[in-house]
Amino acid sequence: MPEIRKDPIVDRWVIISEERAARPMARWAREEEKVEDEAFCPFCEGNEASTPPETLAFRDDGSAADGPGWRLRVVPNKFPALKWGGNVNRHEDDVYRKVSGVGIHEVIIETPDHAEKLADMPPERVAELFDAVRERALDFKRDDRLSCFQFFKNHGPEAGASLGHSHSQIIAMPVVSKYLKEELDGAARRYEDLGKCVYCEIIRRELELGARVVVENNDFLAIAPYAPRFAYETWLLPKRHETHFEDISTERGRPLAQALLEVLKRMNALLDNPPYNMMMHTAPFNFNGNHGFHWHIELMPVLTRVAGFEWGSGFHINPTTPEEAAKALREVAPV
Amino acid sequence: MPEIRKDPIVDRWVIISEERAARPMARWAREEEKVEDEAFCPFCEGNEASTPPETLAFRDDGSAADGPGWRLRVVPNKFPALKWGGNVNRHEDDVYRKVSGVGIHEVIIETPDHAEKLADMPPERVAELFDAVRERALDFKRDDRLSCFQFFKNHGPEAGASLGHSHSQIIAMPVVSKYLKEELDGAARRYEDLGKCVYCEIIRRELELGARVVVENNDFLAIAPYAPRFAYETWLLPKRHETHFEDISTERGRPLAQALLEVLKRMNALLDNPPYNMMMHTAPFNFNGNHGFHWHIELMPVLTRVAGFEWGSGFHINPTTPEEAAKALREVAPV
Repeated sequence: MPEIRKDPIVDRWVIISEERAARPMARWAREEEKVEDEAFCPFCEGNEASTPPETLAFRDDGSAADGPGWRLRVVPNKFPALKWGGNVNRHEDDVYRKVSGVGIHEVIIETPDHAEKLADMPPERVAELFDAVRERALDFKRDDRLSCFQFFKNHGPEAGASLGHSHSQIIAMPVVSKYLKEELDGAARRYEDLGKCVYCEIIRRELELGARVVVENNDFLAIAPYAPRFAYETWLLPKRHETHFEDISTERGRPLAQALLEVLKRMNALLDNPPYNMMMHTAPFNFNGNHGFHWHIELMPVLTRVAGFEWGSGFHINPTTPEEAAKALREVAPV
Repeated sequence: MPEIRKDPIVDRWVIISEERAARPMARWAREEEKVEDEAFCPFCEGNEASTPPETLAFRDDGSAADGPGWRLRVVPNKFPALKWGGNVNRHEDDVYRKVSGVGIHEVIIETPDHAEKLADMPPERVAELFDAVRERALDFKRDDRLSCFQFFKNHGPEAGASLGHSHSQIIAMPVVSKYLKEELDGAARRYEDLGKCVYCEIIRRELELGARVVVENNDFLAIAPYAPRFAYETWLLPKRHETHFEDISTERGRPLAQALLEVLKRMNALLDNPPYNMMMHTAPFNFNGNHGFHWHIELMPVLTRVAGFEWGSGFHINPTTPEEAAKALREVAPV
């Protein structure tokens, strides 16, 4: 069973998961991680037997579970960071604390086609990806052992993807993540100051200024944030105030997909198909702070390495202003 | 002038430094960063004119500043993240805050010899590196515009080093770094609980258990921490309670150097000369919380990539337990 250990000084938990070392790509050598371009891909249509049984799929009418005929499949991760089942036991040893690594780690296979990338899918298929995240989140939410979930996508080996076939992941956890807690605390503090949701205030201000706007539609806004850690970092926010992603309606998955696709196609044009990480931040399942949070997506192209200064200080050095980044993304022709 | 912008939600500052983009290695392509193994190295003995004038050097008697005859030189970074001079002006725009990027960014050239690596230096030379950090820190401390400094080393291109010649860096800043603030807050909270310095308690507990001890001498202890973010992450702590590194005596640089060398040689043997980041955490200059902090060094070999889960959650997944890591490091013959 994995363990979730807490740093004895700061609010940082670490998942100690020895089984992850069994992954094909896990190795302590320094060769660059290669996308496995072997003849056999476990995510391709026809190879359904090489994944654990699906927990959700969008399929052609009449096609059988764990067989061909799907557009999207959600399956348990074969090498999960956290494991399902049992109680969340807390354990103390002197100054140290840990909890058992109860949780869920699933993979969303976004396409049956090995070569198709997220940025090239039609909006209705990307909307289905968000439908899948919502359906899984609503399922996780029913279990009171789970506190929150992290939806994320690693695209390209430099961004940590171990398989080339387009996919994303969800990890549902028994403790609230460090960054989510920081955002909840920060948003609560700013709510005390402003009497308003700070994210709503950011949206208002960015629409007034325009300089950091990347893409906009009726429902969603993509901006280069005021203090981006990384060059061309982009945030995608719902314009209306919403704390929980899973409360989004099916219809609103479509404008979300359109805004995301527009950002990805512009990044691809400007930065030559960069590897990227995409992360969703959404309130913990039991959160009811109303104006103290606002769900959003963070997109970070992987263009530079994080080094000692960043790891030591938690500060980042960014050589591109968000105003320049947003302008360049607005002006490029999407591909 | 660089800017230090604050994230409007969390306590995260970002240095927006467009001049950093002028660095030879800065590029938005994705080719692996190559260590510059060109004929000309600006850090080699004889090439002193290609760096800004030295701010400190340990030299042979009679040798002239910015000429040959040195063992270690400290010079301003040619592409500084922060710039010296002027006031630290604070600026507000609606929900946003920034301060001017006043600070100091220096490079410590650890050796005149292009091929010599830190792990291969004799202890008295590594002790001189710590002497240099102390002397520079005492100098920075005299300026009340500066709040704290971050000493760090990137070894190897995968760890973010842009030059192969062995060097480390110091950045002195007008604001307290995020991670240092988290450690100060966490240590203060734990001091309220325990009535003792939490780092001293960790040292006591680790010496009792032994399982996570990597290296020990009379003055310093190296451990695999209880909740390590990375496989083989190692912390080096002074056994006696000390908040500020710069208060260390010259004599104690030697056992510190010995402990560090022992850890590096064991990592090199076990992990095949891994790239690594080394970071020092020491109290802000004006800190007088006494038992609420304890300076230390964090060493992290770069063996895997950080990806969407870590960037999204601030949690890490580590496939190697610290008990296994410490055992392997203890048992390997150092090289």
